[in-house]
Amino acid sequence: MRTTSLVIAFAASLLFIPQSQAQTSATGFPKGELSNAKNHTGNIWLSELNVGDSTFDPSIAMATYDAGAKLDWHIHPGGQVLLITEGTGYYQERGKPARIVHKGDVIKCAPGVEHWHGATPNDTFAYIAVTPTAKGKTIWLEPVSDKDYKSVK
Amino acid sequence: MRTTSLVIAFAASLLFIPQSQAQTSATGFPKGELSNAKNHTGNIWLSELNVGDSTFDPSIAMATYDAGAKLDWHIHPGGQVLLITEGTGYYQERGKPARIVHKGDVIKCAPGVEHWHGATPNDTFAYIAVTPTAKGKTIWLEPVSDKDYKSVK
Repeated sequence: MRTTSLVIAFAASLLFIPQSQAQTSATGFPKGELSNAKNHTGNIWLSELNVGDSTFDPSIAMATYDAGAKLDWHIHPGGQVLLITEGTGYYQERGKPARIVHKGDVIKCAPGVEHWHGATPNDTFAYIAVTPTAKGKTIWLEPVSDKDYKSVK
Repeated sequence: MRTTSLVIAFAASLLFIPQSQAQTSATGFPKGELSNAKNHTGNIWLSELNVGDSTFDPSIAMATYDAGAKLDWHIHPGGQVLLITEGTGYYQERGKPARIVHKGDVIKCAPGVEHWHGATPNDTFAYIAVTPTAKGKTIWLEPVSDKDYKSVK
């Protein structure tokens, strides 16, 4: 009986190896640096995969959020596509209800639309963002209110 | 003893669940459709994540290769960035030696450069390709020779 318990404990410990590896590096790209920018609340890591320039326009970057972390409201003059690679997050455009987004979702944010995105309160969240830069840099607005953050159903 | 064996067999079967999930869908995006295009040899699945258009230029697509599958030589008039998400592949620009690329690598192919990419003989290969479309569609050239494919060291 004791042998059986040990086998179960050993097998259970092995079970968590692939899962934890998938959570820390599902895409294989580096998690990057902890952001010290003023345009978010909570911890967000940023990993630049391609600098947008005149030869090849879109900026490509991975962002990884601690549970509860969120960006302020903002606008992309050239739009943005988010490829969700880990966890569960919120996405909201001004005047619309916030919605829950998951790993495997593709979010298309049209040029000029005020919006925010962030992690849910109890799960990490990561995406690869593709952001054309030729029409201008991101315009940052006010922080997301607790009312908006807690409004998601 | 028989109970212990059953516990080991059950635990071993569980162990493969997270690993097989990671292999078939590391990014979470659908594998897409098997390509019937004439511009490659071997099986390649294509999953369109964003259509490039005048509102948001870059096309974004995931490609998944069986071991040994490879594209023909080709040119992107607007360049391309490949985000390698699974496995091991080859990448070669005309006049340069082919090189081995891995999950987590970012490959930047400049506009107008003749090149090819594909899976290694014994490993699958997948990437997300970001391809600006405003400067023109991909120009396809000749298939990759066995000499070039086997030249990688």
